[in-house]
Amino acid sequence: MQILDGKKVSEKIVEDLTREVFLIKKNIERIPRLDVILVGDDFGSIKYVNMKEKKAVEVGIDVKVHHLDEKTETEEVTKLIKSLNDDETVDGIMVQLPLPDQIDTNVVLETISPEKDVDGLTPTNLGKLFQGDKSAIAPATPIGIMELFKYYKINLSSKNVVLLGASEIVGKPLIAMLLNDHATVTVCNSYTKNAPDVCRQADILVSAVGIPLYVNKDFIKKDCIVIDVGSNKHPQTGQLVGDVDVEDVVDIVSYITPVPGGVGPMTIASLLLNLMHCYHDRQGNREFN
Amino acid sequence: MQILDGKKVSEKIVEDLTREVFLIKKNIERIPRLDVILVGDDFGSIKYVNMKEKKAVEVGIDVKVHHLDEKTETEEVTKLIKSLNDDETVDGIMVQLPLPDQIDTNVVLETISPEKDVDGLTPTNLGKLFQGDKSAIAPATPIGIMELFKYYKINLSSKNVVLLGASEIVGKPLIAMLLNDHATVTVCNSYTKNAPDVCRQADILVSAVGIPLYVNKDFIKKDCIVIDVGSNKHPQTGQLVGDVDVEDVVDIVSYITPVPGGVGPMTIASLLLNLMHCYHDRQGNREFN
Repeated sequence: MQILDGKKVSEKIVEDLTREVFLIKKNIERIPRLDVILVGDDFGSIKYVNMKEKKAVEVGIDVKVHHLDEKTETEEVTKLIKSLNDDETVDGIMVQLPLPDQIDTNVVLETISPEKDVDGLTPTNLGKLFQGDKSAIAPATPIGIMELFKYYKINLSSKNVVLLGASEIVGKPLIAMLLNDHATVTVCNSYTKNAPDVCRQADILVSAVGIPLYVNKDFIKKDCIVIDVGSNKHPQTGQLVGDVDVEDVVDIVSYITPVPGGVGPMTIASLLLNLMHCYHDRQGNREFN
Repeated sequence: MQILDGKKVSEKIVEDLTREVFLIKKNIERIPRLDVILVGDDFGSIKYVNMKEKKAVEVGIDVKVHHLDEKTETEEVTKLIKSLNDDETVDGIMVQLPLPDQIDTNVVLETISPEKDVDGLTPTNLGKLFQGDKSAIAPATPIGIMELFKYYKINLSSKNVVLLGASEIVGKPLIAMLLNDHATVTVCNSYTKNAPDVCRQADILVSAVGIPLYVNKDFIKKDCIVIDVGSNKHPQTGQLVGDVDVEDVVDIVSYITPVPGGVGPMTIASLLLNLMHCYHDRQGNREFN
């Protein structure tokens, strides 16, 4: 069994991006810029925004955090987004979720120009992803998963890939990306009959159900590659665990993402990859994507 | 074996729509309007536009066909679309494909406002479909397939549905619609290994590969429901045949769409359903959808 090491791969991506931005600065080109909108004082949200800001600054990207009051209304947020849409120096706009209750999240997200939608949350980007359009921006988690496949040279063509869970930010964009790479894709949900039987057909199994230790050896055929998107609290120990019961499947799988240290650490690196994708598209440097 | 009779179901839909438009007129409300853009004099395109116009007029919808010269440039078409986007009396805009070579089809289609995109071809509508947004407009063929399921009371929840082929106008929107109805969905493409083995897992098989008589009894488990989207010329007889070798599977399947007379006749009815969807959304009558 080999570990798909998200920590290592994400560090490699950050290193490559740092070199890329260094060269941009050296050539005295416009510096890539990320604008983050944070509303209110939720402890977790502030922590995530700080982590993203720190990593972006480390890479050399200009970051501007717009920290708005807890009581801010929808209209004020959309007004800010519109001004950032129109600002030529802004490459990516990210709204930290969840937003306070008085704000209409859908209206806010739909206001972001698809070219600057660095979290890949607009319907236009999801549709473009399914149309195989190179300008499409996908959400961070599926990008992180695809980057792991790329790093470990896991070829997807003709592979049977089974997805457990089809959320808008993980499963659905992943369907598009896997089909674009010529995989055969099966999508299971909570209504699926005999999920273990379906999963045992998988060359690659991606679990994003959010149930601790749900996937055991009944779900896995010999040499299956397992991607564990789960990030759950163990019911007894309270520790962070994934969807997969690693001890049970350790002798069967060929590759697996650990939790923590698998898909999770890829998220911020993927956000920064997206920002550079937006930057190059806006600069007209299509060959970078 | 029971036939899924697209001709009969489409006639029922047209009948219902005719009654609906009659009531709209009786209540002296605004009449729904479809604008069709036709460029050049391709024989097939003119025939299709005439068929659509005839059926829409029969239902009572206002139709305006914009027949442009063969040599028309992209900009002239997008200018027309923009004026129709802004015209409050227009509910749906349809561009007959294919367009002449000098026209950039993607640019033309992306100009159509998603609310008036009656063919469901914009990335925004495809993305909305995957996000389960009720305002999403899907292309005509997958809508026709879903209407057949509805008419024959075929419940999709927990069913294993296998799609052969994942085009942007059939397979991909259908993935979204099937997942929204809680099916387990598998998508095969030309890279799939052992397609017959995969298809034999299907409670419902949808074939859209465009290869005459490709699907035989090796692909079908007992009582499978088969949707044949193919519209192919028989290599020997030259007759119109589907993807499915009906004689070979007749004793195994529970339901099947014939070719001709299955999915095909649903197309124009679905276009008109979409137009009424656009009309009601624009009128603010969400309960109709």
